[in-house]
Amino acid sequence: MVLAAWMLRPLVEQALREDLFFGDPTTEALVPEELKGRGVCRSKEPLVVCGLPVAREVFRVIDPELELDFRVREGERVEAYTVLFEVRGRIRSILQGERVALNFLQHLSGIATLTRRFVEAVQGFPVRIVDTRKTIPGLRYLEKYAVRVGGGHNHRLGLSEGVLIKDNHIRACGGIREAIKRAREKLPHTFRLEVEVSSLEELEEALSAGAEVILLDNLDPPRVREAVARARSLRPQVLLEVSGGVTLENVRAFAETGVDLISVGRLTHSAPAVDIHLKITETFN
Amino acid sequence: MVLAAWMLRPLVEQALREDLFFGDPTTEALVPEELKGRGVCRSKEPLVVCGLPVAREVFRVIDPELELDFRVREGERVEAYTVLFEVRGRIRSILQGERVALNFLQHLSGIATLTRRFVEAVQGFPVRIVDTRKTIPGLRYLEKYAVRVGGGHNHRLGLSEGVLIKDNHIRACGGIREAIKRAREKLPHTFRLEVEVSSLEELEEALSAGAEVILLDNLDPPRVREAVARARSLRPQVLLEVSGGVTLENVRAFAETGVDLISVGRLTHSAPAVDIHLKITETFN
Amino acid sequence: MVLAAWMLRPLVEQALREDLFFGDPTTEALVPEELKGRGVCRSKEPLVVCGLPVAREVFRVIDPELELDFRVREGERVEAYTVLFEVRGRIRSILQGERVALNFLQHLSGIATLTRRFVEAVQGFPVRIVDTRKTIPGLRYLEKYAVRVGGGHNHRLGLSEGVLIKDNHIRACGGIREAIKRAREKLPHTFRLEVEVSSLEELEEALSAGAEVILLDNLDPPRVREAVARARSLRPQVLLEVSGGVTLENVRAFAETGVDLISVGRLTHSAPAVDIHLKITETFN
Amino acid sequence: MVLAAWMLRPLVEQALREDLFFGDPTTEALVPEELKGRGVCRSKEPLVVCGLPVAREVFRVIDPELELDFRVREGERVEAYTVLFEVRGRIRSILQGERVALNFLQHLSGIATLTRRFVEAVQGFPVRIVDTRKTIPGLRYLEKYAVRVGGGHNHRLGLSEGVLIKDNHIRACGGIREAIKRAREKLPHTFRLEVEVSSLEELEEALSAGAEVILLDNLDPPRVREAVARARSLRPQVLLEVSGGVTLENVRAFAETGVDLISVGRLTHSAPAVDIHLKITETFN
Amino acid sequence: MVLAAWMLRPLVEQALREDLFFGDPTTEALVPEELKGRGVCRSKEPLVVCGLPVAREVFRVIDPELELDFRVREGERVEAYTVLFEVRGRIRSILQGERVALNFLQHLSGIATLTRRFVEAVQGFPVRIVDTRKTIPGLRYLEKYAVRVGGGHNHRLGLSEGVLIKDNHIRACGGIREAIKRAREKLPHTFRLEVEVSSLEELEEALSAGAEVILLDNLDPPRVREAVARARSLRPQVLLEVSGGVTLENVRAFAETGVDLISVGRLTHSAPAVDIHLKITETFN
Amino acid sequence: MVLAAWMLRPLVEQALREDLFFGDPTTEALVPEELKGRGVCRSKEPLVVCGLPVAREVFRVIDPELELDFRVREGERVEAYTVLFEVRGRIRSILQGERVALNFLQHLSGIATLTRRFVEAVQGFPVRIVDTRKTIPGLRYLEKYAVRVGGGHNHRLGLSEGVLIKDNHIRACGGIREAIKRAREKLPHTFRLEVEVSSLEELEEALSAGAEVILLDNLDPPRVREAVARARSLRPQVLLEVSGGVTLENVRAFAETGVDLISVGRLTHSAPAVDIHLKITETFN
Repeated sequence: MVLAAWMLRPLVEQALREDLFFGDPTTEALVPEELKGRGVCRSKEPLVVCGLPVAREVFRVIDPELELDFRVREGERVEAYTVLFEVRGRIRSILQGERVALNFLQHLSGIATLTRRFVEAVQGFPVRIVDTRKTIPGLRYLEKYAVRVGGGHNHRLGLSEGVLIKDNHIRACGGIREAIKRAREKLPHTFRLEVEVSSLEELEEALSAGAEVILLDNLDPPRVREAVARARSLRPQVLLEVSGGVTLENVRAFAETGVDLISVGRLTHSAPAVDIHLKITETFN
Repeated sequence: MVLAAWMLRPLVEQALREDLFFGDPTTEALVPEELKGRGVCRSKEPLVVCGLPVAREVFRVIDPELELDFRVREGERVEAYTVLFEVRGRIRSILQGERVALNFLQHLSGIATLTRRFVEAVQGFPVRIVDTRKTIPGLRYLEKYAVRVGGGHNHRLGLSEGVLIKDNHIRACGGIREAIKRAREKLPHTFRLEVEVSSLEELEEALSAGAEVILLDNLDPPRVREAVARARSLRPQVLLEVSGGVTLENVRAFAETGVDLISVGRLTHSAPAVDIHLKITETFN
Repeated sequence: MVLAAWMLRPLVEQALREDLFFGDPTTEALVPEELKGRGVCRSKEPLVVCGLPVAREVFRVIDPELELDFRVREGERVEAYTVLFEVRGRIRSILQGERVALNFLQHLSGIATLTRRFVEAVQGFPVRIVDTRKTIPGLRYLEKYAVRVGGGHNHRLGLSEGVLIKDNHIRACGGIREAIKRAREKLPHTFRLEVEVSSLEELEEALSAGAEVILLDNLDPPRVREAVARARSLRPQVLLEVSGGVTLENVRAFAETGVDLISVGRLTHSAPAVDIHLKITETFN
Repeated sequence: MVLAAWMLRPLVEQALREDLFFGDPTTEALVPEELKGRGVCRSKEPLVVCGLPVAREVFRVIDPELELDFRVREGERVEAYTVLFEVRGRIRSILQGERVALNFLQHLSGIATLTRRFVEAVQGFPVRIVDTRKTIPGLRYLEKYAVRVGGGHNHRLGLSEGVLIKDNHIRACGGIREAIKRAREKLPHTFRLEVEVSSLEELEEALSAGAEVILLDNLDPPRVREAVARARSLRPQVLLEVSGGVTLENVRAFAETGVDLISVGRLTHSAPAVDIHLKITETFN
Repeated sequence: MVLAAWMLRPLVEQALREDLFFGDPTTEALVPEELKGRGVCRSKEPLVVCGLPVAREVFRVIDPELELDFRVREGERVEAYTVLFEVRGRIRSILQGERVALNFLQHLSGIATLTRRFVEAVQGFPVRIVDTRKTIPGLRYLEKYAVRVGGGHNHRLGLSEGVLIKDNHIRACGGIREAIKRAREKLPHTFRLEVEVSSLEELEEALSAGAEVILLDNLDPPRVREAVARARSLRPQVLLEVSGGVTLENVRAFAETGVDLISVGRLTHSAPAVDIHLKITETFN
Repeated sequence: MVLAAWMLRPLVEQALREDLFFGDPTTEALVPEELKGRGVCRSKEPLVVCGLPVAREVFRVIDPELELDFRVREGERVEAYTVLFEVRGRIRSILQGERVALNFLQHLSGIATLTRRFVEAVQGFPVRIVDTRKTIPGLRYLEKYAVRVGGGHNHRLGLSEGVLIKDNHIRACGGIREAIKRAREKLPHTFRLEVEVSSLEELEEALSAGAEVILLDNLDPPRVREAVARARSLRPQVLLEVSGGVTLENVRAFAETGVDLISVGRLTHSAPAVDIHLKITETFN
């Protein structure tokens, strides 16, 4: 997931407009236009770094003459008080980009850090930690990027990027079998057919109708284990996903059931920001 | 903070584009175009409701013929399993707006709910819980709106909406006195001059130079208490704000010091989403 | 593929700006502002109708008081001189929307009409006519919609909506096996793995490495037939697509080979416009 | 018609968003980020090259470090298998820009190629081949540019760029004479007055009322010849345009009538794409 | 020049964003959300009314439930203290739209009022007062509309809407004759060829080369008179325009010379705003 | 008030689109693409220079290879016929940017020049000349910037950037005291409370209720003097602003009253453009 300038620019400018719609009167009144200096960005807690390309774009939009010098790699796990980057150039420009750059970094690194914890909690199992569409409006792509930086995998990015037949669809069709039939007739061949089920009966119906991926919704680990056994006996190569109520405490129990995918909404909708700050350490003319 | 259509529309369309850039192939394949029905949106945990006008705009953009019937008021505290609203109309439209509407609601209600807890924690003290500029990019206005819905107050919305002289500004000016002097000469008369200090010495210098609001940064409650006493003795009507490391556990201790404002970054950057869902309960032709 | 107003609006306004950037001085000089009347839109050749919702949006943006009365259904095959719709209201508004509405209709109906001919040419065979990413810039979604209206199916809408491993990818990976291995490790589970091959050897390697869809590129019907036999013997349920040089003349020969999908670039990049016109038939005050 | 970056950028980014809204997962999974190489773009049939500045902008937006090396000039006629340009740099960037760049090139070169054929068909006659407003929505300017690259001339670019009084206007005014009178009173002096006629009577009325350009609509060559003679006898310097049903087969017959302008809708609405491809020929680290 | 919603909307929203980027905290704090009332908009000096459709769009965007009741017609000349319109509905909405609506009205009416004075100053002469491209950035179309409302005519709206060969072009071509030759070869036939001259010699050269409109630049009335005589003797039907230094004081003298067009930059770049205000006259619940 | 590229770009491109929507056919027909030369921009009257960064951005967007060489500083007062800058590069690019660059310069320098005259008229008094929200739609930020370049100060930039309680608010609240009470309860602490009054009684009520800034609306100098005396006796540190009917003739009389701020709407809504032109002085290949 490359973060090219043409993709980031609209988000970055939107964020800058929010913070600087009519400029930065405080800085403009106090800091001479040509005063230069150096700022240092540090973690204030252990974290997985994510968002460096976005921070670079923020400062580039603010002032193309600012020089950024990254000291860590995207996706690197760092301790508290690690220098993430230095920025050199006009003090005004540094101060005007500071908050927006940090807001991106603290949010994306928060997601990457939380994802990494989930990934580590299931280490040793052949299972993917995947995200959901429960993202914060406007940040879908960046949040899904952060999940990958943290070691997770992506579920579909939006409704157009995959097929997932849920309970509401099934009800509107009059049954799993009919739903899968319509899907096979009409949907692009590029997508695997994923079906959400909440019981063994539904699971069996979905498999016999040709589902290629099964989403086991809101089942506890023992019931998931049972479902996995049933599914594998009917169709060995089917992919199995669990979803609903997954936490750092119980994720390993889900992994032990033998599922292929564990999707976790809180990776994107509830990851707390990590603490990162930027200080001017030097000024010069 | 009114949420007019012309303000919400760009955010709502951005969120819809993320989720529906090439439509919703699953629903389009499975659900007949003219099938109608009813969906019910419920809380799954206790929460303070926030974002109803945004949800309405989401469904209005998707399909102006959908009818929304709100069962609670914006800002109302509700228990788990409360019906927030019903939506009636084309099933396709309901399903296509569902995720985006919920993503706004769960995030904004999360902020309002957390804010309410902070506000209740300081009940009885003449102090405001205020937000910061540490918001999620793109959502500054809505998040600050959610803080108000939760009972908090807003600090400046962006750099253009207030004056706050911070350590970096002071260093670039060569001292608090000089910084305040320049601010008084150049800044619009519409803003109060707020100055960040981290010691009693700085506090005194700021007050004698004419600061109207003091931000006490990263001091613990005993030192804040001391600073309050000192400040009030020098200039009774000065406003005093504390910031840095405020949690639900210690916020009352800060309130007891007699400060006027307590700013809390986590209200906006780390409020966990609350759990809200929407289910189709009925279909009809 | 629903064509909702929020999706169509930007394209429609872009097209109107092109034609009416500074208004329509001729009409404004000659036609009184309040003169009303009726216009009739007719096919001038046999065609498959496509784009009625776009035409409606064009006239709605121009003047919400115009009344459109469709006489045919989207996707209907009509003879020359069939009335597609009538429009009633201000003459100025009708004339200002006319060209833009017709430009959408003639292009989209052109695609639907050509697609229908391909679909009919393979009638009786269990094969899908599918489109490609060779679309006219800016119209990807509408053109793919027109293909479906014409009876075709969609291949992936963009690079983000499916996986297709092509020769260039394979070369950069050092071989089909390695490419498929990386794809399985990293790509979302929601996509089937499609691999482009141009020989039987590549076909076998791709199948043994786990390809779920095979794109047979630029082979003639006899070689395709051979490939189909080979593929089915190795993996009965694999999907097989042909691409390259498909015309109305040879498409049936490809269908006879037993492939599942035939992709045809010219559906979108070279469909000639069909002839449609709009005449004012009556004016009244 | 200069194609400056500020004009092309919105179209190019729109086209890239269509193809890469959520990136290019296939390439990102398979091709290492830093792998570099060379791609060669070739014609696969004889054509008139058009769109090189657009292709350059596509690759520049994708990755400013890509190097393009054009081997032909805009407007040059080339044989099949001619190298149009080479591109060097990151393989990922080349692959991500490839389809969009080719989509522009194949469409614009298609228009230029078809235009050139019309221009050559009337060689030796003092007549202009001109385009119409029947363009594909969103591409008006680029398509009219392609017509010029092919050797044609432009009619008005939009309704705001010229005056053309058509039958509908005349009817709404109550006659040609009244229409021209109103036009002379109200329209900017910068435009010539062009009037559409479909009979000798209308032609004479238009000329006597002061029309400066006459559009002879849907007349066959013998009747056009008659109209030309009549018009020249009444007003030698009037410009005469024919329109309607012009093909490569009959265009010369129209040219022989002595008209000044022949407008051809199919130049823009029905030009088939020409075949152009891009292959990676080398990779290196 | 119709002012349709789709044309006005971007300008209106841009203006609202400037004034209400983060809402209207004063009104939101003081005025209850549901308080309704009536506002009256009055002229405070004699003026020609212009911009009513824009004001309507401003209030419609702010709050579609506001009711506007116009008391005067667009283009009407009114005395001081005339009621232009009444607006009824939510007080908050009226106050939030007030300034933006007035800013459009006072500027556009200022232009219409000044234009009317120029038009009246030349009454009785067959001459057009026309505008220039010296407009305030972003308002080209609205300002040219205001000129027409005031009784003036438009010169070309932008560089794409007409041909004007100026001294710089002539120099780059090596002479008037060569410039006109190239223009005739390459420019669309829809435009008349206008050439700027500043002496009788240039005038004669331009006429003999085929100029259809002559712009006499920066000549005083006696020299203009001489030029008119010369031009008419050479080519009776040529259009003659004067430009440069035209004021209310001297415009009649220019009209007396017999020119067809007098262009006046100050109509758009320097028209003083007229004084218009809006007062809440009544509130009710 | 820094004018960064990301802030100026949308305005500059909007202005260019207005002037060059379909390019510049005259220049494209007459001036060879590669012809280079030099243009000189000069004042034609005495003025205060404002807008150089905008002009630079205009030419940079048009053609990044143009070289601008400023001969004066932003805010400098210059005589007639002073060279403001030279521009070197492609003649086509210079001519295509000329009008837009000049339109920005002549308008912004007009505001700065007028502001300077007001500032000089009150020289010697400790009073600020401030602007209002009566700006030309779309140019709020640039016009307020021009006021500062001219030596004035800014009042709030929009409704979100300050608090001003006006007569309409007071009426809707039921009185000054209640209005100020609500404002203190609800408004961000970052703003000073400014209240508009039009009599001594209102002044006293506002002061006793805690107003920090008083706007004396539409009073003549003697009554202002009286109000100042009254206000200072009640609350020495209150800020006092006058507004309404301020002209170059009477501004000094207002300054003599001892007020702190004089706001002048005409600085932005009625400043006449100053005369600036650009001539090509040399061409070379």
